[in-house]
Amino acid sequence: MYNHGGDIYRNRVKIDFSANINPFGLPETVRMALSENIESFGVYPDPKCERLRRAIAEREGVEIDNVLCGNGASELIFNTVRAVMPKRALLITPTFSEYERALKSVGCEIKYHTLSEENNFNLTERILRELDGADMIFLCNPNNPVGNIIDEALMDQILRECEKRGIFAVIDECFMDLVSDGYSAKGRTAVIKAFTKTYALAGLRLGYMIGDSKTLKRIDLVSPCWNVSAAAEIAGLAALSDTEYLEKTKKYIEKERGFLIDALRGLGIKTFNSRANFILFKTEKNIYAPLLEKGLLVRKCGNFRGLGGLFYRIAVRLHEENTVLLSALKGCL
Amino acid sequence: MYNHGGDIYRNRVKIDFSANINPFGLPETVRMALSENIESFGVYPDPKCERLRRAIAEREGVEIDNVLCGNGASELIFNTVRAVMPKRALLITPTFSEYERALKSVGCEIKYHTLSEENNFNLTERILRELDGADMIFLCNPNNPVGNIIDEALMDQILRECEKRGIFAVIDECFMDLVSDGYSAKGRTAVIKAFTKTYALAGLRLGYMIGDSKTLKRIDLVSPCWNVSAAAEIAGLAALSDTEYLEKTKKYIEKERGFLIDALRGLGIKTFNSRANFILFKTEKNIYAPLLEKGLLVRKCGNFRGLGGLFYRIAVRLHEENTVLLSALKGCL
Repeated sequence: MYNHGGDIYRNRVKIDFSANINPFGLPETVRMALSENIESFGVYPDPKCERLRRAIAEREGVEIDNVLCGNGASELIFNTVRAVMPKRALLITPTFSEYERALKSVGCEIKYHTLSEENNFNLTERILRELDGADMIFLCNPNNPVGNIIDEALMDQILRECEKRGIFAVIDECFMDLVSDGYSAKGRTAVIKAFTKTYALAGLRLGYMIGDSKTLKRIDLVSPCWNVSAAAEIAGLAALSDTEYLEKTKKYIEKERGFLIDALRGLGIKTFNSRANFILFKTEKNIYAPLLEKGLLVRKCGNFRGLGGLFYRIAVRLHEENTVLLSALKGCL
Repeated sequence: MYNHGGDIYRNRVKIDFSANINPFGLPETVRMALSENIESFGVYPDPKCERLRRAIAEREGVEIDNVLCGNGASELIFNTVRAVMPKRALLITPTFSEYERALKSVGCEIKYHTLSEENNFNLTERILRELDGADMIFLCNPNNPVGNIIDEALMDQILRECEKRGIFAVIDECFMDLVSDGYSAKGRTAVIKAFTKTYALAGLRLGYMIGDSKTLKRIDLVSPCWNVSAAAEIAGLAALSDTEYLEKTKKYIEKERGFLIDALRGLGIKTFNSRANFILFKTEKNIYAPLLEKGLLVRKCGNFRGLGGLFYRIAVRLHEENTVLLSALKGCL
C-alpha cells in the first residue's frame, strides 16, 4: 500500500496530474472488448496467457517463450527479485520506488547511486565504477520521475559490464512506448514493459517482461497461478489491435510536453528535460496544497529518495487540462 | 503456469466441470457494476483498497485493519509465505497445490501428512503428532479436491497446538461460503477467502485474508502495489451488495450435490462425501478422454500429490448440465 501517485481516493480531485497514464484514456477498442466480454470475467483466465503472449511477441518481434505477463509491472518487479534472490543490488536515485520495496522484501542490501540535480539527474559513466559487488541492478528508462533517457552508448556499456560480471540487469521500459525515437534493451537483458501507462490500462493491471526463456521460466516458477486476469488479457489483446492510438499518442505527447516545459520555464519554474509523458519541476514554495484546493492533484516528490519536498511531477494531459494547471500554477507563485 | 483445473483454453469444451466456481455465474449486480464502470479501468486502483476492505470487514464482522485483499487467493498464499519465510512446513495430501508451490518458491522444506483413502481422506488427530518441528501449516477447509470439512473440535485442537508451538497456521476457507452450516477459523488465525468461487469472479482475481493487523501489515509489506485491480474492487463491492445470490447458491449446491453423489454411486462409482460445491470420485477406467470427446471437461486428479490417475473431481453445475455429464459417464463405464 505504498503511496506512489497522488491519492485520488482520499482527496477531492478534478484533474489528476499525479498518475503518468495516457491522456487519451482507454482506447475505444479496449472499451468495446471489455463491455462485450463481461461474461468471460466469470471464468478462470488462461494460466498460460497464451493468446496475449503471442500477440505481444508478434508486436515486439520476439518468440512467445520470450514473453511473460504479470499483474502490472510491480508484480513482475517483485517476482523477478524473488527468482533472482540478490544479496546486493545497485539502485539509482531518484527512481521508481518499487525496486527498493521488492529488494528489501527479500532482505537484499542496497547501494544507492545518487544522480545529481546539477547534471539534470542524468546517468553518467560514473555508474560503471559502482557496479562492483552488485549482483542485481534496476534501471528505469526513461527514468521515473525525471523522464530522461539513458544515453544509448552508455546503456550498451552498462549491459556489457553486467554480462561480464554476472549482474542481473532489469531495464524498466514502462514509459518507452510513449517516447518518440526511443530504443530498447530487449534481446540484451530482461526488460519490463506495461500496458498501464501506454494504453491507460492502469485499473486492470497488465505488465510483461521480455527476456530469455530460461530466466522467464525461473520467474514464472515463483509466480502465483492465474496472476493475469481475464479482463487484463482481453483488454491487452484489444489494445494491441489498435495501432493508430499509440502513434497518435506519441506525436501528441511530444508536442504537448514541449508546450508545457516552455510554459513552466516561462513562469520561472526550474523544469527538467523529459522525453516521457511526464515532467519533473522544482518550485521555491509549496504548490501542492494550493493546487489541490482547486482540485488539481500533482505528484509531490518528497518521498522519492534523492528528491526534496519542493520537487513535483506532472503527467502530460489533454491541452485544455494542462492550460488549467498552468494558470492555477501562475496564481500560486 | 501450473495447470490446476482442466484446460479450457487448449481443448474443445462445451461444459467445464473442472473449475469449482459458482454455477450461477457472475451475479447480475456484478455484471451491471462492471459495464457501468469500464471508464474507471483506465485509472489506477486504490492501493489501499479501502472501500472494498471496509465492505468485507462489515460482512465478516471484523475491523478494516483485519482485512487484506489480494490478486486472488493464490497471490495471498505466495505473499504470506514470503512474509513468514518458513523453514519447515506441514502439508496434508491431497490438497490444493499452490501451498506447495509457494513454500518451495522460498526453499522451505515440506513434510507431507498423507490422508488415507480408506478413511475418506478425513483429517484425524494423527495430525497433532505431526506438528513437531513445523513452523507453518496450511489447511484447506473444506479441502480441495475432496470437499470434506475438518471436524470443528479437531480444528480447535490444531489451532491451540499451533499457537502453543508458534506455528503459523493458514486456514484456506475459499469454499466455505458455499457450505451450509459451515464454520470459520477467523479470529483464531489467518484465514484466506476468495470471491473467485463464491461469486464466480474467477476471471477478475479477488481474494482476501482475515487476520490480526500486525500479520497483515507484514504481508502487505512484501506485496506489490496496486495488486487488486479496479475491476476486481468494483466487482467485489457489487457482489457483496447482492445478499440473496449467496443464500440461493448454498441451498442449490446442497440439494444438487446430494443428487449428483447419489447418481454417481448409483452408477457404481466410488464417490467421496463432500460438503462443498465439488465432488471427488474414483473410477476403474479412464473417463477423461471419452468425456472430453463429448465436450465435457472434468478435473483429472493425477497431479494431486496423494491421488492416482483414476481420481476425478467435478464441480456441481446447473442441473441440466449435471444430467448431461451423468448420462455421458454412464456411456463410458
